[in-house]
Amino acid sequence: MKSICATKGVSAAGIKEGKFGLALIRASGTAAGVFTSNKMRAAPVEVMMDRMRRGRLDAVVVNSGCANAYTGKRGIRDAEEMCAIAAAPLGLEPESVGVASTGVIGRYLNLPLIRDQCERIAPLLARNDDAEDAAARAIMTTDTFPKHALVETGSFSVGGITKGSGMIAPNMGTMLAFIYTDAEVEAPVLHDILRQATRRSFNRVVVDGDTSTNDVALCTATGAAGKVNREELADAIEAVCRNLAVQIARDGEGATKLLEVTVRGAADEDEAAAVARTIVASPLVKTAIYGEDPNWGRVVAAAGRSGAEFDPYAVSLRVGGVPLVVRGEIVADLGAAKVAMHGDTVSFDLDLAAGDGKATAWGCDLTERYVEINGKYTT
Amino acid sequence: MKSICATKGVSAAGIKEGKFGLALIRASGTAAGVFTSNKMRAAPVEVMMDRMRRGRLDAVVVNSGCANAYTGKRGIRDAEEMCAIAAAPLGLEPESVGVASTGVIGRYLNLPLIRDQCERIAPLLARNDDAEDAAARAIMTTDTFPKHALVETGSFSVGGITKGSGMIAPNMGTMLAFIYTDAEVEAPVLHDILRQATRRSFNRVVVDGDTSTNDVALCTATGAAGKVNREELADAIEAVCRNLAVQIARDGEGATKLLEVTVRGAADEDEAAAVARTIVASPLVKTAIYGEDPNWGRVVAAAGRSGAEFDPYAVSLRVGGVPLVVRGEIVADLGAAKVAMHGDTVSFDLDLAAGDGKATAWGCDLTERYVEINGKYTT
Repeated sequence: MKSICATKGVSAAGIKEGKFGLALIRASGTAAGVFTSNKMRAAPVEVMMDRMRRGRLDAVVVNSGCANAYTGKRGIRDAEEMCAIAAAPLGLEPESVGVASTGVIGRYLNLPLIRDQCERIAPLLARNDDAEDAAARAIMTTDTFPKHALVETGSFSVGGITKGSGMIAPNMGTMLAFIYTDAEVEAPVLHDILRQATRRSFNRVVVDGDTSTNDVALCTATGAAGKVNREELADAIEAVCRNLAVQIARDGEGATKLLEVTVRGAADEDEAAAVARTIVASPLVKTAIYGEDPNWGRVVAAAGRSGAEFDPYAVSLRVGGVPLVVRGEIVADLGAAKVAMHGDTVSFDLDLAAGDGKATAWGCDLTERYVEINGKYTT
Repeated sequence: MKSICATKGVSAAGIKEGKFGLALIRASGTAAGVFTSNKMRAAPVEVMMDRMRRGRLDAVVVNSGCANAYTGKRGIRDAEEMCAIAAAPLGLEPESVGVASTGVIGRYLNLPLIRDQCERIAPLLARNDDAEDAAARAIMTTDTFPKHALVETGSFSVGGITKGSGMIAPNMGTMLAFIYTDAEVEAPVLHDILRQATRRSFNRVVVDGDTSTNDVALCTATGAAGKVNREELADAIEAVCRNLAVQIARDGEGATKLLEVTVRGAADEDEAAAVARTIVASPLVKTAIYGEDPNWGRVVAAAGRSGAEFDPYAVSLRVGGVPLVVRGEIVADLGAAKVAMHGDTVSFDLDLAAGDGKATAWGCDLTERYVEINGKYTT
């Protein structure tokens, strides 16, 4: 197993019929979630933010194809009904079932379809390769591959699945991530760990800069592996989140290359992250990556508008290890730099020479295909 | 005449040879400038920020093809030398000549070429249609048409030229705007007027969100028309800036449609502007415009992440006059909305129902051609 089902106490099932998918994940334990910062939160996010106060979940139900966003009071009732639909065949209280949605904004859920799909997959809940893959595939929208990650330390494991593609995919919504561990950990601690891990992983991925109405990262700890070292757990959860985040970036809509930008020498980590995010989000950097054009001026210009404090003539910049600027001196060997941009991953390393802060952000190139996916799709 | 030469006291000349152009504009008077907020300012911007303290200019020299950005101390010396080159044939002090550049970042100016071009065009300085058009064309990079604007009130006139295309064009730089009036006005007043006009025009255009290292808007007042009413002058300058700004948006790299977003009912004008800018900058809104897809959820979602305070279920949204959402009720007639998105201009009107603030921002659609222009261009 390569993700959630490798974690003791977790079983999964999923179905995908055309653009409508449903995933069920059964796992009892302490739970924590982080949610979209978009003011326009989808109904399932509203329901979950309330529900997570209990700090425990027994299962999660997720649908793709309809975001249940901008659906008002009826959307809230529908999200609660979706929990009840999933709770029934599992013999659970609806309040102990988590819910998430991804898809078109401004449409109501098709509850009869969700009920039908749920009744068909609940008996299939299992702890094996096929089950976790079915769940990962059920939540995909424009993703081109299912996304799994797993860290096994010997004493405990952390596994996760996610979907991404666009921050908002073509008229669809959402980054969704479901992470499971068999470590035993209290809900508030788990929440702190998840928040920190999210800040350093999912929050550092920019595909198109559009923040979804439905973003959610959920972590449930079944406790089956007993108590563990907190630092070790935090490291494992962060590693799983980072692995999933990089997969989201690589599978960005229309992407042909992963873009990885490490900024060091910033005043602090937050400032390094802000600079790295600005660079990976720049349409001009993204198109240069696509064209394998070592147009380093665009990278430095993006850093310049990021708001960070630094001396432009003190910076150093490398692409794939090839120096472009060394302490403000232009040393670019454009031929070697262009070669360093071949392949499916392009890495920039920018040293601001202004402190000890360091952070990495991930994105992808901007291609004609992104425009096609998002422009030619008609509601 | 349709722009700067319609203003008394202004003569112009220009030449464009391949990607290297030079424009000369002769006009003595009080002067004010606003400059890029990018921390990495180009050398000519540094020189001009210093030079504008005098509040007077006698001429401006502008080159395209090389941004003279990230060029260190040599770049500063080169920008000063470029002023001296332009001052000589005009019999002016170098300190009274303004300078601006647009083009590739990280390259030094070709001063021999600039001297040669300058010597050839200085004798051609004239006040007529051809002269102002030659200047407007000389500063173009990926622009597809020269950009002129003129307001004549009867007592005075305000004319301007600009270039845009990308906030940073393909490896090139810059939004440049040169505005002239024959009104008599003191430099500090002119500066206030220009700053306000810029805030409401150029600063509300987003082509790709990348802020150039070379952005500059300059206004010179020759005083030939004598003293005028301050409000009237401010209105005329703002109208000229807005006209030029809309032309920049319409001529965004690869654009097929102008996108105009008016936000009303915000807490104040700044908040309305922030929401409008977020919407016109959204890649998902931009691709939906391109595909004529009335995907209004993307517009509301962009507003939701703008940071503005409002109740998502109180908003109203129209496209080209067709209602999509009325006080939170979805009323979208998607067929009629799609028709409203035909043509070369798409207008959204979003009422946040949270105050009296109102602002308009301009952008363009995102097309495969933008990717092609910026991705396939190789340094």
